[in-house]
Amino acid sequence: MSVNSNPYAPSPNDLLSNVGNFLLIESTLREGEQFANAFFSTEKKIEIAKALDDFGVDYIELTSPVASEQSRSDCEAICKLGLKAKILTHIRCHMDDARVAVETGVDGVDVVIGTSKFLREYSHGKDMNYIAKSAIEVIEFVKSKGLEIRFSSEDSFRSDIVDLLNIYKTVDKIGVNRVGIADTVGCANPRQVYELVRTLKSVVSCDIECHFHDDTGCAIGNAYSALEAGARLIDVSVLGIGERNGITSLGGLMARMIVSAPDYVKSKYKLHKLRDLENLVADAVHVNLPFNNPITGFCAFTHKAGIHAKAILANPSTYEILNPEDFGMKRYIHFANRLTGWNAIKSRVEQLNLSLSDDQVKEVTSKIKQIGDVRQLSIEDVDTIIKDYHSEQ
Amino acid sequence: MSVNSNPYAPSPNDLLSNVGNFLLIESTLREGEQFANAFFSTEKKIEIAKALDDFGVDYIELTSPVASEQSRSDCEAICKLGLKAKILTHIRCHMDDARVAVETGVDGVDVVIGTSKFLREYSHGKDMNYIAKSAIEVIEFVKSKGLEIRFSSEDSFRSDIVDLLNIYKTVDKIGVNRVGIADTVGCANPRQVYELVRTLKSVVSCDIECHFHDDTGCAIGNAYSALEAGARLIDVSVLGIGERNGITSLGGLMARMIVSAPDYVKSKYKLHKLRDLENLVADAVHVNLPFNNPITGFCAFTHKAGIHAKAILANPSTYEILNPEDFGMKRYIHFANRLTGWNAIKSRVEQLNLSLSDDQVKEVTSKIKQIGDVRQLSIEDVDTIIKDYHSEQ
Repeated sequence: MSVNSNPYAPSPNDLLSNVGNFLLIESTLREGEQFANAFFSTEKKIEIAKALDDFGVDYIELTSPVASEQSRSDCEAICKLGLKAKILTHIRCHMDDARVAVETGVDGVDVVIGTSKFLREYSHGKDMNYIAKSAIEVIEFVKSKGLEIRFSSEDSFRSDIVDLLNIYKTVDKIGVNRVGIADTVGCANPRQVYELVRTLKSVVSCDIECHFHDDTGCAIGNAYSALEAGARLIDVSVLGIGERNGITSLGGLMARMIVSAPDYVKSKYKLHKLRDLENLVADAVHVNLPFNNPITGFCAFTHKAGIHAKAILANPSTYEILNPEDFGMKRYIHFANRLTGWNAIKSRVEQLNLSLSDDQVKEVTSKIKQIGDVRQLSIEDVDTIIKDYHSEQ
Repeated sequence: MSVNSNPYAPSPNDLLSNVGNFLLIESTLREGEQFANAFFSTEKKIEIAKALDDFGVDYIELTSPVASEQSRSDCEAICKLGLKAKILTHIRCHMDDARVAVETGVDGVDVVIGTSKFLREYSHGKDMNYIAKSAIEVIEFVKSKGLEIRFSSEDSFRSDIVDLLNIYKTVDKIGVNRVGIADTVGCANPRQVYELVRTLKSVVSCDIECHFHDDTGCAIGNAYSALEAGARLIDVSVLGIGERNGITSLGGLMARMIVSAPDYVKSKYKLHKLRDLENLVADAVHVNLPFNNPITGFCAFTHKAGIHAKAILANPSTYEILNPEDFGMKRYIHFANRLTGWNAIKSRVEQLNLSLSDDQVKEVTSKIKQIGDVRQLSIEDVDTIIKDYHSEQ
């Protein structure tokens, strides 16, 4: 553990760390469209793309133009918006797809092919030689059109490491802009990610992009470890929507990164727009914000136990690593419950503009805890108890 | 990266790993009671305790008996249930609390004290000498009653490493059963956790317990890294409920661990009861299951993009690291959308007991994708399109 003045800053041992220098590939309009509930109209896609651009994401990734006729025309429409973010589309490693993609007006093309034995056997049925040959053909074609090109393996953590390093080395040599590692099934763990990215970093000179599914709950931890190891770009989506239970969420990664690289994150992204962005997407795909969502979950800044409330009132840093104001959110001290303490009640007495001595506050706190033992309390209940007690003095 | 026959098995480099030998301290009835929405009646606490015991958790942790009169009597009632799980209560490092705790009938006492400069200054105001003295007094007292005792620092990742190792070494010497590391504010990252646990492992001979808040989305990744480094026990709660947005969730950790230690996890925990347990707690605290919850989220086993559906139909392992049947859940191929592919539609045609050639399936898939481009499709819509097409042949 590094114990320096800011223990959350990038570790000095990670010489290749991009924790303070990362880029976001926002994939709500590609990975997110693969979420069970997602059906985005053209208008909604444009609204989301504009909101993402305004938030400050570096890249916006769109569904393959080959997926459907509308997917193609929507891709073209978004390319014409003149956004600051670069527009990417995501295709199979095949010339048929590449020829369509380069005509849409995108700034870059993300190519993917399954490299695990599972996918080679049950998905496309091709061997590594075939994969290398297709990759070279597609990459050289896209580059010849002056566009950015990424080559990613799929299901990288179940692929043979020698196969992986071979293909990445090959595509790096012919000038791919970045290579991608994808935890397609969500099986990877953070230290495994660190090791693979660090190894890959010694093999290629281009940037490394990472894509993590969240099936086993590690999508944010894995993204962080990847950046520590020298990956530069992380794929995210709003609320993490995607295949199955999705990928690294934009908001969750912001929570993680602001702790480690506060100046970079605050200068680059409009964090106070996160909530609106999440509401926009949640409405579009008919889900509620998870109650425990990082930052915007309804209780993310609610403090309840008496001992927590006391310290938070003295100094918010005691029990908060995130500052709610950075995200346009508010802190809340939950005092209407049996776990409350007299410091929280004292603060409420002051908010009510009443005057009680510390001993009196302790006495009324004891009454509140007694009633809180019997039933759930509302704020109004507590205020009434305090006011009644005050008028009796 | 370790590439062996099971790449998710504990890494052979982690000589102290407890990935295949961990224990759960279930804290829904302590940490979970600090969740903003939680108000558990005695009956509800007993129902939850019984369900947790049936699921197979090793320890059940309860709110301090000093928190309120009802907290004390509920603690006594749960101790009398005769559960297989050991019952713990969680108190401040103070003899006043300890004297009450040992009379409740618990099997063990979890003691905690803030060790960070933040908490020492703004919470209890005590120095490390005072902390050590109180710790020794409380530990020896609890041990004299024949009960298990854990000593934990609070906010461990913002505490001075020398202070931490000193106090842990002291309490280990006098025979504490386990020491606890707590990421009270949710700031730690996985590799930092690994380093601290591994260092601590070289200092103490007792077990190490870890407690991770999820403010920055790493609570599951951190728990996994802690076990890799040699921690033995992880604190969890159902749906992760707790202060702010909570801690490592029981279900999320099960998803992570079944990938790495399938035999251990399946033999020890009744995984098919996870959904009922989550519903019980979600109802009690008036929240919905997050749409993206690991395992039990409504789309955790839903596959949508055509390329995914095709491979899943050939072999589920292609795009699934978790087997839904292990949790009494079902896989679902989402075919009613514009990203669908002809393999998914072919499977649906077979489910409908209709007969179409591959070329015919491709033709009807194209029709479905065209309509899916214009509007959101239901299963009924797709079935109607297929049946109409079939009757025209």
